Amino acid sequence: MPKLDENAAEFRAAGHRMIDWVADYLEGVARYDVLSRLAPGETAARFAERPSELGKSYDALLAEFESSILPGITHWNHPAFFAYFSITGSQAGILGELLSAALNVNGMLWKTSPSVTELERLVLEWLRAELGLPAGLFGIINDTASINTFLGLAAAREALGLGIRADGMSGRELPQLRIYASEHAHSSVDKAAYALGFGARGITKIASDPSARMDVEALGNAVARDLADGVRPCAVVATLGTTSTASVDPLPAIVKIARDAGMWVHVDSAYAGPATIAPEFRWLWNGIEGADSIVVNPHKWLFTPIDCSVLYTSRPDMLRETFSLVPEYLKTSDGAEVNYMDYGLQLGRRFRALKLWMVLEHYGMEHLREVIRGQIRMAARLADELTRRGDVELLAPQLFSVVVFRLLVRNADGSIDEEGSERATLAVLETINESGRAFVSHTRLRGRYGIRVALGNGATEWSHVEAILDFVEEASGA
Amino acid sequence: MPKLDENAAEFRAAGHRMIDWVADYLEGVARYDVLSRLAPGETAARFAERPSELGKSYDALLAEFESSILPGITHWNHPAFFAYFSITGSQAGILGELLSAALNVNGMLWKTSPSVTELERLVLEWLRAELGLPAGLFGIINDTASINTFLGLAAAREALGLGIRADGMSGRELPQLRIYASEHAHSSVDKAAYALGFGARGITKIASDPSARMDVEALGNAVARDLADGVRPCAVVATLGTTSTASVDPLPAIVKIARDAGMWVHVDSAYAGPATIAPEFRWLWNGIEGADSIVVNPHKWLFTPIDCSVLYTSRPDMLRETFSLVPEYLKTSDGAEVNYMDYGLQLGRRFRALKLWMVLEHYGMEHLREVIRGQIRMAARLADELTRRGDVELLAPQLFSVVVFRLLVRNADGSIDEEGSERATLAVLETINESGRAFVSHTRLRGRYGIRVALGNGATEWSHVEAILDFVEEASGA
Repeated sequence: MPKLDENAAEFRAAGHRMIDWVADYLEGVARYDVLSRLAPGETAARFAERPSELGKSYDALLAEFESSILPGITHWNHPAFFAYFSITGSQAGILGELLSAALNVNGMLWKTSPSVTELERLVLEWLRAELGLPAGLFGIINDTASINTFLGLAAAREALGLGIRADGMSGRELPQLRIYASEHAHSSVDKAAYALGFGARGITKIASDPSARMDVEALGNAVARDLADGVRPCAVVATLGTTSTASVDPLPAIVKIARDAGMWVHVDSAYAGPATIAPEFRWLWNGIEGADSIVVNPHKWLFTPIDCSVLYTSRPDMLRETFSLVPEYLKTSDGAEVNYMDYGLQLGRRFRALKLWMVLEHYGMEHLREVIRGQIRMAARLADELTRRGDVELLAPQLFSVVVFRLLVRNADGSIDEEGSERATLAVLETINESGRAFVSHTRLRGRYGIRVALGNGATEWSHVEAILDFVEEASGA
Repeated sequence: MPKLDENAAEFRAAGHRMIDWVADYLEGVARYDVLSRLAPGETAARFAERPSELGKSYDALLAEFESSILPGITHWNHPAFFAYFSITGSQAGILGELLSAALNVNGMLWKTSPSVTELERLVLEWLRAELGLPAGLFGIINDTASINTFLGLAAAREALGLGIRADGMSGRELPQLRIYASEHAHSSVDKAAYALGFGARGITKIASDPSARMDVEALGNAVARDLADGVRPCAVVATLGTTSTASVDPLPAIVKIARDAGMWVHVDSAYAGPATIAPEFRWLWNGIEGADSIVVNPHKWLFTPIDCSVLYTSRPDMLRETFSLVPEYLKTSDGAEVNYMDYGLQLGRRFRALKLWMVLEHYGMEHLREVIRGQIRMAARLADELTRRGDVELLAPQLFSVVVFRLLVRNADGSIDEEGSERATLAVLETINESGRAFVSHTRLRGRYGIRVALGNGATEWSHVEAILDFVEEASGA
């Protein structure tokens, strides 16, 4: 019978070459254009119409990877990748993924690899303590914040006590169920609401204050109106560190409203959560004792390669009641043998805790704190230097590693030319992104178009951030 | 400002050592006990109460990995791992994951790395053709079959035309919606039904015939009864290659019933699908033109490390209508710029096509076909040798790489002692699994307890399979 791999000699040699390639790539990544310049279809056109019949050597494939795949890569590793949120990988994270791919285990049950479950529990308990989150939270790693928000809201739906797992949502009378989230909440809340049968009608977007924080008075009013109308409030999503501006919803007031209305509180701190390894940022968690579920993404800002998103919950029983296929009375009660498959939708589970363990242990907490502090200092410096200019306006207070600004164009009477400002800001954004030297994204706040700079890459130095100032300078000089 | 990684020298050296470790591990994996022997808590107890403050060298971490993590690993790479379905990794797949972790891109949008989207489209078109699936299918890689079945059923729900995305499922009158699946369908169908608001009440499990194939007459009756009762049939899940026995539901008859009732047809061929790279197994696809969505898992039987599950659909428009947050009228119509985030729940997307590309291209289709054929021949030989024994019964016809059997214990009058047979079968299973030399799982068919042997590991040779025969021999000699 033919074996797939006859021996590991070829793998060993190719692996060494690929490690060298990766090392060179990481050291030289700033030489690449951040944003790929290819047109749609250009990558696909470089390949044959069918896969090889007789196979190709690793050398040939590595060459093809460099010539045909790399040009179509937007370099998230580039130290001047400032768009979206960086997916902050790291050397330790890459090595963790290598070992994880080699073991190739599925941690669906404790016994299918005890280390997968136990390291996940251990590392998430380490992380919980390092973040300063309350003791007693249950943690689980999933692939994305999208899935974790979906799971939190699925548990919230079950926690209503309406028997939705058993009886479903069709062919019966259910009150209108509602989720509340700020207008700045992440789009994954909408997707979860669609999937879970709340529908677009079942999610109310709450207005925000000028600092892009959820307006709690508006939340209170919306909930009161709904209660009066016979609508059943199900959950509120508080975002601590929004995508647009890193703004922080006022959690204590939200928790109070939620408790009064019997709602689940889901906290999305996918981006900003990891910053709280530095104690001076733990104000973020003000009110967190009232949260039922909390999302924190090590793959957003803790130097762990995608994918690694953590869901903490004080009510793991509700996740089990929603998803476990094993009757509750058959569970072991000592908690030693957690079978993670009982706590979510996905059966297959990669060994993701391994890379997070590698990152925390290799760099050590002190260095990780210092790197995150440095990134926040750079963001503050960028904001500071931008505000010194008369022709730039910050569209939101600088928080964590996010800076949002626009260029100001004035009318003859000194008032702001809104249209002209948007045109000038868009022009700078396009110049930056077309230069290949940096990549920023945009947002719109109170109708105003702004350039959004988000730091998070462990290789970013001030010189990379400073380039943004040069582009602004150039634009206003023109 | 402190950088996370000062340079790549340490990474380079550690990477080489880890590649060597992986090469040694893969060559020597048969020396390990397949199933970890640790008790709950033993792994966790080997670690400190908090992560390192000052960091540890990669050498120290690799040593800790070997001493503290490896003992708690159940070796899915072991050539005698016959439980569940193997998650069949490969050397090429590991190298693909290494490069993917190094690039660490998020393919949520075409522009966030054109190569991620275009290689995914290309490789899935290659794969579609190699599997002999109909032309014109849209493909997307997600993490697990659980997610892909969930997405298929979410699209089915939207395709009812009841406006569920817009209006949700609460606070309105909806007819009882129903999904149908064989009693042998995978548990992910249940989980998807719970999540999507069908509930346990909204899924009808259809009885199977003696060969564990869905009884289409029973399906037809259930649908007719539901229609008469005002229930709205939504989708039927046909499993081509069930988990228990690799049985194949009669798709053409199922499609006919589904079409008459206006139902979506979701096909779960996560396990058996990849075998159709060898044309002699394409009978599996009989009736597939009638499928709306199809799941095939390269991480189950195409030597691609977890996670890599493919969803093909003839109706990608319904996935978009369910999940896209961009109004349809803003879409580009030429199809060049697929933004995969519009086709599912998850925003973050790893570059998974890279490892599948590496696997197909490195081994070549001819070798991949031969390896899968060899595994099926070994399963057939195992089944054959077992049936030659008077004291063994196959509980299902051997199909693909799955063999299910039990030991027979007879009463004095020659009739079968059911209880005694179960005890004897369970005893052999325990002996096998405790030996560390192989790992099998079990199933129950028509009340009978059976040992389930599933091949799929590229390193499996006949000697590993033959060990199962030795254990049976020993048991009956005792």
